[in-house]
Amino acid sequence: MKLNDRGLLIVLSGPSGVGKGTVRKALFNMPGHNLEYSISMTTRKQRPGEVDGKDYYFVSREEFEKRISEGKFLEYAEFVGNYYGTPLDLVNEKLAKGNEVVLEIEVQGALQVREKCPDAVFIFLAPPSKQALYDRLRSRGTESEDVIEQRVQKANKEFQLAYKYDYIVVNDTVENAADRIMAIIRAEHAKTERTIHRYIDLLK
Amino acid sequence: MKLNDRGLLIVLSGPSGVGKGTVRKALFNMPGHNLEYSISMTTRKQRPGEVDGKDYYFVSREEFEKRISEGKFLEYAEFVGNYYGTPLDLVNEKLAKGNEVVLEIEVQGALQVREKCPDAVFIFLAPPSKQALYDRLRSRGTESEDVIEQRVQKANKEFQLAYKYDYIVVNDTVENAADRIMAIIRAEHAKTERTIHRYIDLLK
Repeated sequence: MKLNDRGLLIVLSGPSGVGKGTVRKALFNMPGHNLEYSISMTTRKQRPGEVDGKDYYFVSREEFEKRISEGKFLEYAEFVGNYYGTPLDLVNEKLAKGNEVVLEIEVQGALQVREKCPDAVFIFLAPPSKQALYDRLRSRGTESEDVIEQRVQKANKEFQLAYKYDYIVVNDTVENAADRIMAIIRAEHAKTERTIHRYIDLLK
Repeated sequence: MKLNDRGLLIVLSGPSGVGKGTVRKALFNMPGHNLEYSISMTTRKQRPGEVDGKDYYFVSREEFEKRISEGKFLEYAEFVGNYYGTPLDLVNEKLAKGNEVVLEIEVQGALQVREKCPDAVFIFLAPPSKQALYDRLRSRGTESEDVIEQRVQKANKEFQLAYKYDYIVVNDTVENAADRIMAIIRAEHAKTERTIHRYIDLLK
């Protein structure tokens, strides 16, 4: 049954520290999906445990800026002195295979994708409370007080942008959040505006 | 976490014979939901195995018409000489408790609800093919050839109205259809337009 099985571009976004990466991993560990992760490119320092080409493509600032000038990003953003971007060719390649493509990106980048791909599904991952996010940012421990303060300020601005998304999913527990996102993906497949053309074929 | 947990009015509809009742029962057998079924009222003859007050409220034509004149139906329709309707007071009672209310109704009735409750979620249950529905209508065996022919004609008209619904779910297997409907309900809870007000409270 192909009618409810069309691929989608899914944008998972939200403030830094809300747990996008953890929720995305839980989502990908769920059974029975054909999700493909779009690996971002960044100029930020590789953290312990991170793998190049799996967690991110780690590139130099020079390389990143060359790619910007060549129009090779679906979106990109600069934050705390580092670039983060989604390589356009890789997304197109995965979409061409008919799979779902999940972007896990910053709010600034998500709004760029909104303009280029209005048909994508935009999910804002929210913390259970503001305080929970602040605590999380502080407990991460890999960044200086200055960087934490910048992230807090940025989060405060990003909280206000949730209304621009299609869905708000609260990260109360990682499992709940991943479950809800999977439900959203399945529901989006059944949306009349996505299925009506194939439905008409079906009834011929 | 209350943010994604608000109750909804869910309208499950589709042509006669598509399997609305079977899918609805499978949906209600799924674990971990708080769905409430809105039992319809009808003047049609009770079929073997059907229970009054569980499958339908079976009432006389006189009683039904009295209730129409008193404005006691959220929607009603007449088909093959019988009335079918949704008692308004029972739906309101269930919604007041904060539960999801599921209506399993004819297309004609669903479009009435669309006008009265634009915020409800409208799901069109479709057969895997036209032929599958015709076969099903014929194999039911409880109705005369005349009634079957009327249902086929009605289905042919109703197929054209799917575009008025929010979602089209294909009843390829009962389990798949019920799964998709549950996913739709969960996703609808996370929709930004439903959650944004509470989200703002959350961030205070």
